[in-house]
Amino acid sequence: MKPIKILGTGMTKFGEHWNKSLVDLAEEAGMKAVKDSNLKLKDLEAIFVGNMLSASVTGQEHLGALVAERLGSKIPAVRIEGACASGAMAVHQACLAIASGHYQKVLVIGVEKMTDLSTAEVNRALMGASAEAEEGVNGFTFASLYALMARVYMEKYGLKEKDLAQVAVKNHAHASLNPLAQFPFKVSLKQVLESPLVADPLKVLDCSGITDGAAAVVLSSRPWTVDNKQISVSIIGNSLISDTLSLSARGEITEQEATRKAVQEALRMAGIKLKEVDLAEVHDCFTIAEIISLESLGFFKKGEAGKATARGETSLNGRLPVNTSGGLKACGHPVGATGVKQIVELALQLRGQAGKRQVKNARIGLAQNIGGSGSTAVIHILERENHV
Amino acid sequence: MKPIKILGTGMTKFGEHWNKSLVDLAEEAGMKAVKDSNLKLKDLEAIFVGNMLSASVTGQEHLGALVAERLGSKIPAVRIEGACASGAMAVHQACLAIASGHYQKVLVIGVEKMTDLSTAEVNRALMGASAEAEEGVNGFTFASLYALMARVYMEKYGLKEKDLAQVAVKNHAHASLNPLAQFPFKVSLKQVLESPLVADPLKVLDCSGITDGAAAVVLSSRPWTVDNKQISVSIIGNSLISDTLSLSARGEITEQEATRKAVQEALRMAGIKLKEVDLAEVHDCFTIAEIISLESLGFFKKGEAGKATARGETSLNGRLPVNTSGGLKACGHPVGATGVKQIVELALQLRGQAGKRQVKNARIGLAQNIGGSGSTAVIHILERENHV
Repeated sequence: MKPIKILGTGMTKFGEHWNKSLVDLAEEAGMKAVKDSNLKLKDLEAIFVGNMLSASVTGQEHLGALVAERLGSKIPAVRIEGACASGAMAVHQACLAIASGHYQKVLVIGVEKMTDLSTAEVNRALMGASAEAEEGVNGFTFASLYALMARVYMEKYGLKEKDLAQVAVKNHAHASLNPLAQFPFKVSLKQVLESPLVADPLKVLDCSGITDGAAAVVLSSRPWTVDNKQISVSIIGNSLISDTLSLSARGEITEQEATRKAVQEALRMAGIKLKEVDLAEVHDCFTIAEIISLESLGFFKKGEAGKATARGETSLNGRLPVNTSGGLKACGHPVGATGVKQIVELALQLRGQAGKRQVKNARIGLAQNIGGSGSTAVIHILERENHV
Repeated sequence: MKPIKILGTGMTKFGEHWNKSLVDLAEEAGMKAVKDSNLKLKDLEAIFVGNMLSASVTGQEHLGALVAERLGSKIPAVRIEGACASGAMAVHQACLAIASGHYQKVLVIGVEKMTDLSTAEVNRALMGASAEAEEGVNGFTFASLYALMARVYMEKYGLKEKDLAQVAVKNHAHASLNPLAQFPFKVSLKQVLESPLVADPLKVLDCSGITDGAAAVVLSSRPWTVDNKQISVSIIGNSLISDTLSLSARGEITEQEATRKAVQEALRMAGIKLKEVDLAEVHDCFTIAEIISLESLGFFKKGEAGKATARGETSLNGRLPVNTSGGLKACGHPVGATGVKQIVELALQLRGQAGKRQVKNARIGLAQNIGGSGSTAVIHILERENHV
């Protein structure tokens, strides 16, 4: 596949938007991305909407046509759903559609409105991402599924609760530099460790929030220049892999097979080695998820990611900055929007537009978005090209 | 786009499957299609699942990974949702994915399980296909939205209730020849006209049923032979167009703009003229929908499709057989499966495998699947090639 250019990006503030509807949020992010691309709405040829929970929250389906109508457009519009990986899955499908030659310029919007439900209701609805008839019906929540992974991991590799907490401390520190983050403030190790227990060993501050928000990108097969700065960012590798929905069907729950296979495919497509990656956005719906993701991606050996986090290797100034946006943990996790937001963050970083959280001289970024307990993994690899 | 070969087709009986789950139905149709293709499951590279209502019926989302798990596969798997056009939309996305060169062989499954809800509940859930916050919340059902279209159409073109009823009589007659139809029996004009009123002027026998079922196709970029008969069926044109979700935002409700635009694009892609089409499966969720669809597709002038139906022009032995499967009306309408079933029916007809309802010497078939009140239109054009 030829590289797909990212022409524009946009996102809403992540948080509790009680005065905005799902389609308000989609429109806001979408129009920001279109404006950023220097294109007009009428230039676009298709819309891909990533969303998981709309039917559960308001009963509204058919989000493709809904979003197109709001944008005053009658172009092809499709909704893609892959649980918490819906956003990256929508980007993936958009890339394939562009690669087919059917479309040249496509808008992808990931959007979710979660705070219209109570926390209990939204946790129940989220179980639609799991093997509902096995896990949801029997009282599991995602916090408890990830707590199981954390317990097994801690037994196996000697990880401590404070090692998990370091992930939260780091990602909150990053979010404190991101004005669009839901939780733009630092937390201390003590605060994380003393926060209320959700599912032992995971505490409130080990968990991502319940979030409203949207993120969008304009993609194209053709090159782009912004403000004559000649910085172009492209998707050079992408992949999508499935695994079992139910955690009990996996052989090993301290690593994610779908992520492991997907990253190999994406690297092969991109023609790069993992060590060339300068920064990553990974799926830290819970602190343990970041640890497992970093190891499944191959950035660290099994059992090593916790220590590396404590040493600051994944911090903004570390050797591999991870989740500079604040991650799902502190930037927020509007589930259908998350995968698109990861790509927005990487694009901003590679263009040098990430403000106070800018990583210096980054050339290659990697995004990993997963659905359920690792049942879907979507990887995107982005590259900055300087044409000066 | 190069033609996409239909390597295999499969579908379940359409009806009330109280002893089968959604994933049971998906597996049954999917495995039939794989068997029919003479491929093995391990040959497939991706799965596209079309589904609308799963979240509303059971809370289960993430159907891509769910279906992949059931099939014992860990390949990329995506769910596509576009209301009642979810099935054809999934086929459309699969075609783009194949055209991109990313995949060679793809399984598409459309599936819906509706009878686990009461009729009132499922009618409410279906309003997710409409502008829910405007139409659903205010008490509209799809029967009442289509009844509005019928009333305006009747005023404008002098259509009578018996003309509408003729569509039901014809489609039930076709379904009586289809062993997989939900309602495989004939009805008389009198029976239709005397059936209980649902939303004036639409009666029970003007409406499609509430249906469980699944349909599947295996698609590929490469040619295919079956039993050395050398009959190959390909998708030579496909298109997807959006329109407003809400009926009140349309200028004209007796024609479907999205269908009109989509058919032009599909014909252009296929390089054929409409008059070359030998048979069609159109979206007759209500009898009035078949009339409006046939005219929006351009098969008949405005106001003429009702009379043409009464004259038998769209019957099995007419000049343009329409809905030989029995249509949504009498074969049944498991919403996410319908668009795939239409393509299955056309493929069977073009291969000469349609049994008692076989249309003679058909070379080109057209399928039209719509979402909501016409807010999404998906067109596929299929062609038989004889390589003898």
